[in-house]
Formats: sequence, structure tokens, C-alpha cells
Amino acid sequence: MKITSVDPFYLRMPEITSAADGTQDTLLVRIRTDIGLEGWGECDASPLVSIAVHCCPMSHGNIINIRTSLIGETLDGPDDVVRLSEKVLRNGLDIQQIQHAYSGAEIALWDVIGKKLNQPVYRLLAEMSDTSDSPHPKLPYASVLFGDTPADTYRIGLDLRKLGYHAAKFGWGPMGKYGEENDIELVRAAREGMGPDAQVMIDAGVVWGKDYETAYKRAEVFSQFSPTWLEEPLSPDAIDAYGSLTGMNPAVPIAAGEGSNTYRMAEDLILHGRIQYVQIDTGRIGGIMPSYKVRRLAEQHGVQFVNHTFKSHLSLAAALHVFATNPDFKLLEYPAAGSELSQRIVQNPFQIDSDGMVHVKELPGIGVDVDTEVIRSYLAQVHITVGSETVFQQPQL
Amino acid sequence: MKITSVDPFYLRMPEITSAADGTQDTLLVRIRTDIGLEGWGECDASPLVSIAVHCCPMSHGNIINIRTSLIGETLDGPDDVVRLSEKVLRNGLDIQQIQHAYSGAEIALWDVIGKKLNQPVYRLLAEMSDTSDSPHPKLPYASVLFGDTPADTYRIGLDLRKLGYHAAKFGWGPMGKYGEENDIELVRAAREGMGPDAQVMIDAGVVWGKDYETAYKRAEVFSQFSPTWLEEPLSPDAIDAYGSLTGMNPAVPIAAGEGSNTYRMAEDLILHGRIQYVQIDTGRIGGIMPSYKVRRLAEQHGVQFVNHTFKSHLSLAAALHVFATNPDFKLLEYPAAGSELSQRIVQNPFQIDSDGMVHVKELPGIGVDVDTEVIRSYLAQVHITVGSETVFQQPQL
Repeated sequence: MKITSVDPFYLRMPEITSAADGTQDTLLVRIRTDIGLEGWGECDASPLVSIAVHCCPMSHGNIINIRTSLIGETLDGPDDVVRLSEKVLRNGLDIQQIQHAYSGAEIALWDVIGKKLNQPVYRLLAEMSDTSDSPHPKLPYASVLFGDTPADTYRIGLDLRKLGYHAAKFGWGPMGKYGEENDIELVRAAREGMGPDAQVMIDAGVVWGKDYETAYKRAEVFSQFSPTWLEEPLSPDAIDAYGSLTGMNPAVPIAAGEGSNTYRMAEDLILHGRIQYVQIDTGRIGGIMPSYKVRRLAEQHGVQFVNHTFKSHLSLAAALHVFATNPDFKLLEYPAAGSELSQRIVQNPFQIDSDGMVHVKELPGIGVDVDTEVIRSYLAQVHITVGSETVFQQPQL
Repeated sequence: MKITSVDPFYLRMPEITSAADGTQDTLLVRIRTDIGLEGWGECDASPLVSIAVHCCPMSHGNIINIRTSLIGETLDGPDDVVRLSEKVLRNGLDIQQIQHAYSGAEIALWDVIGKKLNQPVYRLLAEMSDTSDSPHPKLPYASVLFGDTPADTYRIGLDLRKLGYHAAKFGWGPMGKYGEENDIELVRAAREGMGPDAQVMIDAGVVWGKDYETAYKRAEVFSQFSPTWLEEPLSPDAIDAYGSLTGMNPAVPIAAGEGSNTYRMAEDLILHGRIQYVQIDTGRIGGIMPSYKVRRLAEQHGVQFVNHTFKSHLSLAAALHVFATNPDFKLLEYPAAGSELSQRIVQNPFQIDSDGMVHVKELPGIGVDVDTEVIRSYLAQVHITVGSETVFQQPQL
């Protein structure tokens, strides 16, 4: 079959705040083919900047947009996805945003191919790499922001527990901003709200920059509350600082990686930051295949692989295919308090089973269906002209 | 003073081809202040994608555009440039294209501050880092593309020699595409055209991807023509492959780094790729200060620092300030065959003196004047709407 269109859709809530809540808007990408099959993917990226990568005029041989690289191309099997990804990245060599913008299309290509071959994507990946294709359920951890105060955080934990979560990550907001005592009280409140038997993760939201000594001190003092990990205490590219931090053997494992815009950034974190958990966003790093390569690298280095997902269940579905077949990677970031938009994008969201676990979708492709009726009301129409030419006109949903 | 506007201008030639010629279009950024001072900078990046980074709607606290971060801010000295850069990058943490897009504005901020303090930028940098502020001239090497054939390449070399160049770099085009014999003939032709006493550099234009063994073989066989370096034989992020290549001690030094979109990418290449020449584009890595940090890192590691410049003399001026004060870094990439547009952007381009050398501008700020009359005829008007809102309207030149 041939690719006939690559269409990005900018969806957003009526109001956007500066909170670290990535579900306030999103970019979906739809790929259509000449035999009527279509696929969908989602980027965790600035929608407008990423739309520009789909339609920007050519600057030279290393700045060619995603649509030009894909439309008209042949797409018949997984090898075509790999080939087309190489083409897109080579044509976009000098577009820094290329991985962020391409992630949605890459996921959509897998969705199409899975539907064509009547296979869930995780099985296609297993076949390509000659590994086990048995999926294993994951323990979902609710991913939420800290409350503004320890008391608010305690209540959030209590509520999550009532909703049936056995694990939760608290992040960003006040963490690291009002001194050590407040940081400790926030973590204490998260632990007390969730109860002694739950898994609790702490996401510091890059608050200590390159200051690995403060990060180390916090890890030591947080250890009394037995968090599963301390996430992103440092800036994404402060690799030496990560290396210094992990070299001090803090009492809480260190997690990072959501800021990996390329495979190399994740590799760099694993090899030189020596983190214990690598967290990959399939909607940022360029899609499913580069995420899968990081999973394989994590396996080689004895590092735990975890998804980073703070968008809709379309992103969650894509993320799950990446590591469903490794039973040692047990945890799944599960967006539990996202915007109304993020909760309504797919018709068949993931349910938590009676054992408290989440299963990969045993359906062709990614396995979730985008609710085009619902998302229409969140669509921000985008129109871009350069000189006398319209380079982007909003495609129909 | 206060920043009153941050205005990007997309300039382009009437026709754009897929040749690896980065001078066919460009993005200039003008910053204006409330006391009438203005500064200019240039990005080596996709103009449309980078304009989107100036104006994209906020997605959350980590996707906030450049204009929002800068307009209304106080700008009185070099420390303000550093502070504002931290703000822009923090607010744009989840915008992958942030460094590419911000480079022009960062350079423009230095231009403004230099004018305000009546100092060339290289002296401000020397003062901040407490190092020598004596500038040293550089040997310009003409940066050109290979001809389609060895015979064409020979003629290009001959012409450059007649124009007075004592050094030239030949790149991209047919290199690596038609087998070893043709590659050898291309390098032989470059050497013969330039003559035995000239410096000749070879730019392979990332053609061997991760295949460091072929890159090694070519370096060995090219060594008979004594090139100064073999540049970018591998993909920008194939750091392990670079490490393998340099570990084999090829007979020609290895150069790379123009693809460094962040300081960390350059650091990664130096520490783990173990290259001998690091080539930094001030218009990509986020501007003058991150480039200057790479220069300092190169000094620590005994690596040669060279600019990457394939835009106008506005970019060349910014690049020169970064390493003018280090006499050991002798070479300067000098765009010698760029488009008419790239040659007309500044009113006072760099001249080559009677000794064949180029000197940093001893003028306040960056030291070149943008010819606004000339560039008006190359301006591509950009207009972007999102929903009912115009997020970008072309500013007046």
C-alpha cells in the first residue's frame, strides 16, 4: 500500500496553565493509505512547533519536512517502517525538533502495519528481534503532581488508594522549592496517604539542575519513606552530575530519561549517568522503534526500563508495546489525573484488572481507537502561510 | 534597559534545491530595546520551525515560547544574557528545537550588550572568564561543496587558489556515494587543484552513518593527500562509532560537531567520540555562550576548536568572537561560495588581509551591520494562526 496523507491535529483544553501538566494539550498524527487503512499516534511535544516540522519549506537537502518524506511511499511491513524512519531522520538531519515531531507519525505507521498484518505491535517487534512474544501485565502506578502542601499531597495519596492504586508517583509542584523540611514533609505525606504497603515514587522535576550534592542529600533523607525511586533530580543533559550522584550510591535508586529526545541521549544517561531506571517517552524519542532499542540496551546493562507517559491512552498503548514482553520490567506509568481531553481521546482506554494490573491490547496495531467525534471539539485549527504559499491548512478530522 | 521586541525574519532565495547548501535560506533575529539599541543574530536552522518556537502557544510550564520568556525583561550586562538564556531554556525544556531557535536571539542579546557597553563581544567573554582579551587572526579556509566529478572539483580548487585561499574544505555531494575509487579521485582532485602547499580538508557529510570501518579505510587511503582532517564521516549521534574510529588511530585527524544541538552533544563527542577537531555552530547550539563553553572544554582536553559556519557573515562574526582570543585555534571556516543572499546580508563583511588572515571585528557588539534594505527583497512573510488567534504576524523590517 501507499501512504496518502500524514495529518497532524492540535488538540487543547479551553484554558492552559503553567502547571507541569502535559495533558492540557496534545498533537495527534493520522496516517492514511490508499487501501483505506489508517493509523494514529501521539506526540508529547509542542503541537505548533511539531506541525511546522510536518510542513516547513525545504531549506536544503538536510531540512526536508516529514510529509514530503512520507507521502507517496510504500508501506507493506515492519521493514518499511524502519526504512521510512531512516529516510525521515536523514531528510530532517538539521531539524532539531525532528524526533519530537516524528514520534506521532512513527507510532501511526506501526498502527497501520499492525492492522494490515492483523498483529499487535508488540508481536511484530518480538518477531523482528527474535525474542519472546509473550506479553506480561504491568503494575500501573498513578502519575500525579504533588499537592501544593503536604496536607494536599496526603489527601491525593488517600484518594488514589481508594481508587485502587497500589503504586503512585508524586512530582513537580512544590518539590525542591521551599527547603529540605518541606521536601521531607511532602514525601512523608505521599507515603502516609498511600500507606506502608504501596509503592511510592518521587519525581523532583529537574529542580536541582546540576547540584548533585543536594540531590544526594534528599535521596538519603527520603530513604526513610522507602520510595521506589527518585526521578529527575537533575537537568536532562547534566550527565556528569548524574554520574557523580549515582557514584555516591544514594540509598534510593535514581530514575531519569523522559527528556531523551534521541536514542543517544538515553544511551548517554545509561552509560555515563549510570541511572537505575530509564524512563522513555515513545512520543518524544522518535516513536516505538527507538524506544524499543533503549529497552534492549537497558536489558543489556541491567537497568530497569519504564515508560514515561503523561498524555492520553493512545500514548500509553504505544508505550506498552515497547516493553510488554519483558516480565522483569514490572511498572507502568499510568496517567491518573490528566485533563478531560486526555481521558476522552480513545474509545477503549486501558482498564486495571482485578489483580490491579494492566495488560497490553491484544488487538491489531496499537490497539486503541481514537474517538474522532469527541476530539473534534478540542481541535485548534492551524493555518500557516510562508510568502504567498499556504504550507499548512487544517486537515479534516 | 528593557527588551521590547524579539523578531524573527525568514529570508530565502527564489529557488531552493536539495543540495547540501545551507545558504539558500536563513533566519535572522532582531532584538529591540526601550533605549533604541538593537541587535541581530542568525540561526542555522529551519526558519519556519524556529519561528514556531518564538510564538507557539504555551502547552504547560515546560513549553513556553522565546518571546514570552524575553519580552519585557531587563538587559543591562553580560550576566543578564546568562540569566535570560537560563530562563529561555528552562521555559522551553520540552521544546526540542529550543537551542536552534534561540541561537539567533542569544547572539542578538550579545550584540545589544556589546553596543551598550561599547565593547566587542570577545572582550566581554574574556572578562567574564578572566582570560586574555588579545585577539588573534585566523586562517580562513574556503568552505565549498565537491564538484559533481573529480574534474569539476579540480577546477573549484584551482579557482579558490586564484582567489587567494591557502586552505579549503570540500564536502558533501558525490563523496561516499560512488565507491572508493571515486572518493579517492575526488580528494586527489581537491589536492591537485589547491596545490601541494595548501591546507585541504575533506567533509564526508555523514555519509558512512555508523560504519566506522569504511570511514577508517577512507582516512587511511586519503592520507596520501595529507588532508588536515576528515570531517563527519559518521552520523552526529553515532558516538560509539566515533570512539571506535578514533580508537583505531587513523592517519588523518577526525573532525565533527556541527550537529551539536546542545552543549552536551559536543561534550559527548569530545569525551567519548575522542575527536581531534570539534566544530561548533554558534547558530545551532544556542548561541555564543554555549559555544564558548565548548571552546573552554576543548582547551582542557587538547582538542582543536573550529567554527562551523555555512551562513552569512553575521554568523561568521558571532563565531569569531567565541575563539578569537585563543592563538592555538588557527583555522576559520569561511563561507566562500554561498548564495547571493548570504553574501549580501551584512554591509561590512570580513575581508582577508594581505597575509591571508581574517580578524575579529574591533567594533561594539558583534561588529557587523545588517543591510535591512537589501534583505527586504528576500523576506518570506510568515503568518500563523491557531484557532481564532494570530500567533505570528510578520514584523516590519
